[in-house]
Amino acid sequence: MLNGYGDIRSGNSYKVRLALMQLRLPHEWVHVDLFAKKTREPWFLEKNPQGKVPLLEAGDGVYLRESNAILCYLADRTPLLPEDRLLKAQVMQWLFFEQYSHEPYIAASHAIIYFFGRPPGAEAKLEEKRAPGYKALELMEQHLGAHEFFVGERYSIADIALYAYTHIAEEAEFELAGFPAVCAWLKRVEAQPGYVSKAELGRELCQEARA
Amino acid sequence: MLNGYGDIRSGNSYKVRLALMQLRLPHEWVHVDLFAKKTREPWFLEKNPQGKVPLLEAGDGVYLRESNAILCYLADRTPLLPEDRLLKAQVMQWLFFEQYSHEPYIAASHAIIYFFGRPPGAEAKLEEKRAPGYKALELMEQHLGAHEFFVGERYSIADIALYAYTHIAEEAEFELAGFPAVCAWLKRVEAQPGYVSKAELGRELCQEARA
Repeated sequence: MLNGYGDIRSGNSYKVRLALMQLRLPHEWVHVDLFAKKTREPWFLEKNPQGKVPLLEAGDGVYLRESNAILCYLADRTPLLPEDRLLKAQVMQWLFFEQYSHEPYIAASHAIIYFFGRPPGAEAKLEEKRAPGYKALELMEQHLGAHEFFVGERYSIADIALYAYTHIAEEAEFELAGFPAVCAWLKRVEAQPGYVSKAELGRELCQEARA
Repeated sequence: MLNGYGDIRSGNSYKVRLALMQLRLPHEWVHVDLFAKKTREPWFLEKNPQGKVPLLEAGDGVYLRESNAILCYLADRTPLLPEDRLLKAQVMQWLFFEQYSHEPYIAASHAIIYFFGRPPGAEAKLEEKRAPGYKALELMEQHLGAHEFFVGERYSIADIALYAYTHIAEEAEFELAGFPAVCAWLKRVEAQPGYVSKAELGRELCQEARA
């Protein structure tokens, strides 16, 4: 049994939960409330000294950090990660692109708006993130103009990772209207077997809270 | 034959060259001068629309971006990347840590100082990067206090990736004196078979330029 720790309102946590569900892996999901700063509490810091979610307990007391490393672990030897050496490296290429050239701009803008509630200085920060965020979307558009999915014309963890924050790009004030190939790809991802939206997972969370 | 493109004065390029040499992989190395903005020239953009080095031509006209994805490709099925599913995922965890929590602070500070030559506004940017950069070093120190190498007590691409910008952290104005385990690990990396320093590779570059 795998134990996942996260807050699915964060895209990095959502991508792990989505992979767990699409791979039909039996797991427990522990909600770690980011708004309530639960990642800073001693019980959590003991599991992850970096104080970040998502986190996967892969074995008894063996914890794995970094959303995209967790995706690699979960997808290893499954259809979500190609065996072929070059295709596998291309998946890695898009996973690193996501964490270096996409997440720090689009996800970070989303966090400034929804998590931190536009604190003083937010507008300058958001402005700084605009051009590199759009640059990431342009590179995706260019690639998806010629391909169904990011790697090998097949749905993989590269799509899961990039979906997590691209599908909420408009909430982060990045317009997707100029990116038709990206929009079409978002729909293809949402048509994959076992797909669950963030909203659905959020409702589940509310039910648990009421129970 | 593999073709590597990069500027070894950048740590991201250096790590690829180091892996190529330690794995004794026959390759051509094409110097793409970052100072002369060669990555912005049409011949290069045709190979990599992102306009970044390093870049690996893995097959005829097949290009792989992202330094750490290139490391995964080169090290696949070699002693530099464990076969074991969990150990492999732990390597990934440190590779993502390097690109998300280390490189944007320590490498970026190095670039501000040496590549951009402290332009106006540099001091504020450097100051902003100080705390998260030290936080990355602290996490490394904590881990290396109990381990010889980052994963599985064996030298891997996780060490190569983290070595690239940690060994020049002081040039980026991050003091390493408070990190004895990190300093001891740097020496262990430098004692690995096939290790070549940036300085040595730099001399080779100067000789080529003179030839």
